[in-house]
Amino acid sequence: MNSFNPPIRTLMGPGPSDIHPRVLSAMARPTIGHLDPAFVGMMDEIKVMLKYAFQTENELTMPVSAPGSAGMETCFVNLVEPGDKVIVCINGVFGGRMKENIERFGGIAVVVEDEWGTAVTPAKVEAACAANPDAKIVAFVHAETSTGALSDAKTICEIARKHNCLTIVDAVTSLAGVELRVDAWGIDAIYSGTQKCLSCVPGLSPISFNERALEKVRNRKTKVPSWFMDLNLVMAYWGTGQKRAYHHTAPVNTLYALHESLVMLMEEGLKASWARHAANHQHLKTGIEALGMKFVVPEADRLPQLNSIWIPEGADDAVVRGRLLNEYNLEIGAGLGALAGKVWRIGLMGQSSKPEKVLFCLAALNAVLKN
Amino acid sequence: MNSFNPPIRTLMGPGPSDIHPRVLSAMARPTIGHLDPAFVGMMDEIKVMLKYAFQTENELTMPVSAPGSAGMETCFVNLVEPGDKVIVCINGVFGGRMKENIERFGGIAVVVEDEWGTAVTPAKVEAACAANPDAKIVAFVHAETSTGALSDAKTICEIARKHNCLTIVDAVTSLAGVELRVDAWGIDAIYSGTQKCLSCVPGLSPISFNERALEKVRNRKTKVPSWFMDLNLVMAYWGTGQKRAYHHTAPVNTLYALHESLVMLMEEGLKASWARHAANHQHLKTGIEALGMKFVVPEADRLPQLNSIWIPEGADDAVVRGRLLNEYNLEIGAGLGALAGKVWRIGLMGQSSKPEKVLFCLAALNAVLKN
Repeated sequence: MNSFNPPIRTLMGPGPSDIHPRVLSAMARPTIGHLDPAFVGMMDEIKVMLKYAFQTENELTMPVSAPGSAGMETCFVNLVEPGDKVIVCINGVFGGRMKENIERFGGIAVVVEDEWGTAVTPAKVEAACAANPDAKIVAFVHAETSTGALSDAKTICEIARKHNCLTIVDAVTSLAGVELRVDAWGIDAIYSGTQKCLSCVPGLSPISFNERALEKVRNRKTKVPSWFMDLNLVMAYWGTGQKRAYHHTAPVNTLYALHESLVMLMEEGLKASWARHAANHQHLKTGIEALGMKFVVPEADRLPQLNSIWIPEGADDAVVRGRLLNEYNLEIGAGLGALAGKVWRIGLMGQSSKPEKVLFCLAALNAVLKN
Repeated sequence: MNSFNPPIRTLMGPGPSDIHPRVLSAMARPTIGHLDPAFVGMMDEIKVMLKYAFQTENELTMPVSAPGSAGMETCFVNLVEPGDKVIVCINGVFGGRMKENIERFGGIAVVVEDEWGTAVTPAKVEAACAANPDAKIVAFVHAETSTGALSDAKTICEIARKHNCLTIVDAVTSLAGVELRVDAWGIDAIYSGTQKCLSCVPGLSPISFNERALEKVRNRKTKVPSWFMDLNLVMAYWGTGQKRAYHHTAPVNTLYALHESLVMLMEEGLKASWARHAANHQHLKTGIEALGMKFVVPEADRLPQLNSIWIPEGADDAVVRGRLLNEYNLEIGAGLGALAGKVWRIGLMGQSSKPEKVLFCLAALNAVLKN
């Protein structure tokens, strides 16, 4: 068996996104112990920088030691108790995954449906809250990675708060790519991923819980049905105390990578990062339309960092993506679920959101579609 | 905020162990997509090499995308159904964590207790099985990281099989460090970690399930109370089919590291790795006894790769470990649970199991204890 040397790709799918050499080399620094004082100091810096990225003062702001779907599960397994009614908005794959989480932890899911490729309709959330005064949580996806639709998190959180519901927000694809303000918008629990607009390696899921959410966790009638994800335990390791209690062995080197990607975010500035993602989306839009292709999501609901494009008539989905990969080392994303075979997803996230990459992607698409 | 440059430590605690530069540099190779054909090919190679490491032909042999405690949870959450009686052997911290897992998933734990620092007593397991004919699972820790005791996995599995129980075995610290034969010993479900005798970075948990175990997973009356860890779903991504279905975003670069550490294991050979761990333990033993210190675990039950030593009278636990770290950049482990403050744990795992490191550790201990 030989060492694995990956091909050098340009990653313009739904994630992972391209990773800066600074992040890759940070990750390769020598491993130290997960209870080493030097490591604990780095953990504290990660927390500070994640608070900035999320725009929150929440003390419980930290990365879960597993990918985004484990971050999702950490939110639901801690906050949903058996019998809890949860309003869940589904406008793509990840809303559906939220429902699956709710039901596996004994919750009752009340579904608010919107068409795939559109945003969640706040009026439907309002109606569901009004019709279900016993609902305890509203859960929705801020940026649907499966379609590229951006929902109005601020308004949905206001509605939830008015009806005394907690909110669980999926920000896997939105964090650092579009405006997101956890405290100002009153988001109670949120999770994200590292491999999207942060341009870090996959494998970690930043989360943040406010006091309202933590109160529900602390006052549960039953133990959290997960040892690995129980925030009461995890917090003893990631907490504020001087003394960190061993919970699990943290993924030390992956956290080096996250630290470096957050340093880079702070150097750029959060608003500049949002603006860069918006600007490169405009470049892509101009080019895509010039090629005669159409976006799936109406312009008002469109995410800049995840662009779903209808596959042009006559083009073979797998053949085109295969040629892009094999001839140009370019990865773009396939459709998921109901959109499989019908759309391509072009990611302009983090280091993949650059004019040179937009230009290259358009040129490669043009070359493959015309030949 | 500045980039993080860790100090260069020698890691001789309970894990992570020292990591070879080959593994660190493999991890820093460019990220590719988690559905890229090149990546899928690498996943297949990891499965082949993990089968070798576990000495199994089990098709379901793969790394969970999270640390060892998530591997533990993957075993229990899939195999324990509400009301299931599970015999769990506790002779250290991790047996206790198993019990916690059983109860969180609605199982009934029947505890077989042995003193910390000793092996699990097979006769007690036999008695518990005989007294609980309705028990469905026997769970135990092969190599107790908290104490350094090695249990007789082969015999315990024979007893369990005779009583029609499945076995769940914790091999976090044993894999590649001592003899372990999943198929020959009839182990049904097993989990390990990457940061111990494989000398890979922390963050992954190799698992293996045989057909008997999978049959129980497939015939559950209720859905697995975890979406992230549900093997029915995970297998669609790690499975044998040509077409891999997206489940979660795999930790791509950490898997590069695991691949490289497994290539190195195959180059050395599993038996040679076991022999190396045994030999370096003998070197350490000679030196520790020459320094007048005593092992916690009786010689017959002693793990070569994790050595618990009673803290000598007059020595201050935290002061000594602090000096080793600050003056010599040497990490050794503190005691856990009932042994906190009473023992040190010296790890000779993977790349930390080398004559030069044993010598250095003994010299540093001697220097600090004498001054």
